[in-house]
Amino acid sequence: MNGKKLNIGLFGFGTVGKGLYEVLQRVGSKNVEIKRICVRDLSKPRAVDAEFTDRADDIFGDPDINFIVELIDDADAAYAIVKRALQAGLPVVSGNKKMLAYHIEELIELQARHNVALLYDASACGSIPVIRNLEEYYDNDLLMSVKGILNGSSNFILSKIFNERMSYADALKLAQDLGFAESDPSLDIDGWDSLFKLIIITVHAFGLYVAPEKIFRYGISNMNDDDIRFANEKERRFKLVAHVEKIEGNKLIMWVVPQLISRNKYIYSVEDEFNGVVIKGLFYYKQFMFGRGAGGHPTGSAVLSDITARLYDYKYEYKKRNDSQLPEYSTDCSFRVYYRYSNYADLDLVKFESVSENYISDRYKYVVGTVSLRELHKIQDELHKRDVFIAAYPDD
Amino acid sequence: MNGKKLNIGLFGFGTVGKGLYEVLQRVGSKNVEIKRICVRDLSKPRAVDAEFTDRADDIFGDPDINFIVELIDDADAAYAIVKRALQAGLPVVSGNKKMLAYHIEELIELQARHNVALLYDASACGSIPVIRNLEEYYDNDLLMSVKGILNGSSNFILSKIFNERMSYADALKLAQDLGFAESDPSLDIDGWDSLFKLIIITVHAFGLYVAPEKIFRYGISNMNDDDIRFANEKERRFKLVAHVEKIEGNKLIMWVVPQLISRNKYIYSVEDEFNGVVIKGLFYYKQFMFGRGAGGHPTGSAVLSDITARLYDYKYEYKKRNDSQLPEYSTDCSFRVYYRYSNYADLDLVKFESVSENYISDRYKYVVGTVSLRELHKIQDELHKRDVFIAAYPDD
Repeated sequence: MNGKKLNIGLFGFGTVGKGLYEVLQRVGSKNVEIKRICVRDLSKPRAVDAEFTDRADDIFGDPDINFIVELIDDADAAYAIVKRALQAGLPVVSGNKKMLAYHIEELIELQARHNVALLYDASACGSIPVIRNLEEYYDNDLLMSVKGILNGSSNFILSKIFNERMSYADALKLAQDLGFAESDPSLDIDGWDSLFKLIIITVHAFGLYVAPEKIFRYGISNMNDDDIRFANEKERRFKLVAHVEKIEGNKLIMWVVPQLISRNKYIYSVEDEFNGVVIKGLFYYKQFMFGRGAGGHPTGSAVLSDITARLYDYKYEYKKRNDSQLPEYSTDCSFRVYYRYSNYADLDLVKFESVSENYISDRYKYVVGTVSLRELHKIQDELHKRDVFIAAYPDD
Repeated sequence: MNGKKLNIGLFGFGTVGKGLYEVLQRVGSKNVEIKRICVRDLSKPRAVDAEFTDRADDIFGDPDINFIVELIDDADAAYAIVKRALQAGLPVVSGNKKMLAYHIEELIELQARHNVALLYDASACGSIPVIRNLEEYYDNDLLMSVKGILNGSSNFILSKIFNERMSYADALKLAQDLGFAESDPSLDIDGWDSLFKLIIITVHAFGLYVAPEKIFRYGISNMNDDDIRFANEKERRFKLVAHVEKIEGNKLIMWVVPQLISRNKYIYSVEDEFNGVVIKGLFYYKQFMFGRGAGGHPTGSAVLSDITARLYDYKYEYKKRNDSQLPEYSTDCSFRVYYRYSNYADLDLVKFESVSENYISDRYKYVVGTVSLRELHKIQDELHKRDVFIAAYPDD
């Protein structure tokens, strides 16, 4: 540790920023201090004893500040801050999944060029150290898949719906009141947040970066009471699942989609704002990690773990990126889905390879059948716009 | 990685040694090679293409060998090997929990003195990287407790008993046939293995080393059909739980004891040879990690993770050991237990602070009551010898 002292310039003082501040107060670390906090609106009353500014230059221009922590919502602003810090040789901890999901390749390159570290474990799964585990432990080329519930907010909503029969709207409102939801709820609900995290995880798990627009992403905002009844009848629950898997021919498939999960699955019991990740390997079979995925204190504590890792000069090695045989991204696979629709015109939207169930009633209709990932990706926008709902429905 | 190549001298070729060999064959790492294997009995037929010896000097005297992996059963021999390696400046991976639990303080000192690394994540929880997570992630002084199922073999037996109504003897035999049990089954069944792992975990989680003889340890070998019926009636299952917790006054309490686990607990569903660890922190609440805790391939794969970590110069920092305020070991706490006995003479053995249930029948008798950890530790040997069984029975 060498008597190192981290003087932090913090950007953002929302749920997580405040969480970090409070955790740090409570822990009383002698080696970590928040020197100055940059916020958008200085006039907001804040009952904390810290130096605030609304000018980034007050942080970057302060020679005492030797560490940047970026916890703001705006991905473009976050990108500018992180880039500026790395170029100035300042280590950074970032919590902005969206920014990372779009710029991670450049940021990896910047870290190498300026010999400085960017850490973001807290961004990927709240308090579960999934990045660090993928980096440090599952690095033997044995990894087969990583999948799980990566978004605490949508999972909280689904839990309230399935366990407490709450309405979708009430559950969303409650999640926002409790500080679990992003300021823009569609980030959580429509699967964006899960997708961004999946992209970051995939870089560390398999070495490959895949841009957000290439990946099939579907959320829970179209889900209605008929869908919920269907899940209950099958003794399953909808969970919003992010999935990356290596398939034959060194190909990598990825998606974010609601999935009908049966009781015997680990993630069936991941409730409320918790996240759960299942890591599958050739030899160790399955690992399951589970922890709080949202909320100021758990995430603040995770951010602090990223910060204190720097006291020991920890950095990501991105080992998998150097593999001579990087996998190739593919949408060349099929899976079974449940597809609910109201108008016959919407049935044609999905090109089923085969259909195993066909249900028609006055109120709603559904099909259970097999469809290719490539097809789903093509019709992704329509699936969101129309009065339909689709979910993976594994045969297990 | 710097083009580093690890030429391994391997000691031991039992379940885990063979597992490591096979995993390595399959993975085909260019940077890791098993150069020579030292075994006790050279005459045993082995269908593998590797150079064997029965003399340690053939390994330590080989200038090409730059890495020692020790996977033998005999703790004394393991200690001699690990010590010799560290003194020679050779990095070591060890899988011997017992050896570590007795000698870890000296081995930490030797690592520092000779500036060389000893890694042993695989020893503590099979394929769950619990040591590394405690070292790298949960290092903010926020840790409150670590508890879990640390022994795959006894858990396998308990699962067979509770889920498949198998007899204790048949379950033990099956565990041995499948290679899950140590060659001396009492290591698993009587809680020794869990205890050794708990000691290692505690060094990394709280910085404190506590010698095995100071800690209350009780296993499942005295459990009988009446106990199993009791658990079933209460809709609970016995699990062999290792527990370390920080309590008020900066004190640390530890124990290994069968516990009546209710359905709503994470570890209730940890079945078969799996391990499960619950890490509790002030801010992140609970983390749960779950994975295979026994078997040649999962453990071999975990050993390989320890080995490849050295390609990146990973070493344990033992950060918590440098805390200015190390916690103090204590047995100063009480908990509720179920105590089954046959002879009235055995009732006096346990000094109950209070009794809430008292059951007497022709066949067996039990008491539910509160007892201090200090008392339990005093009578530990008698609890094993007599026809009685005790288990923690939390009121939840």
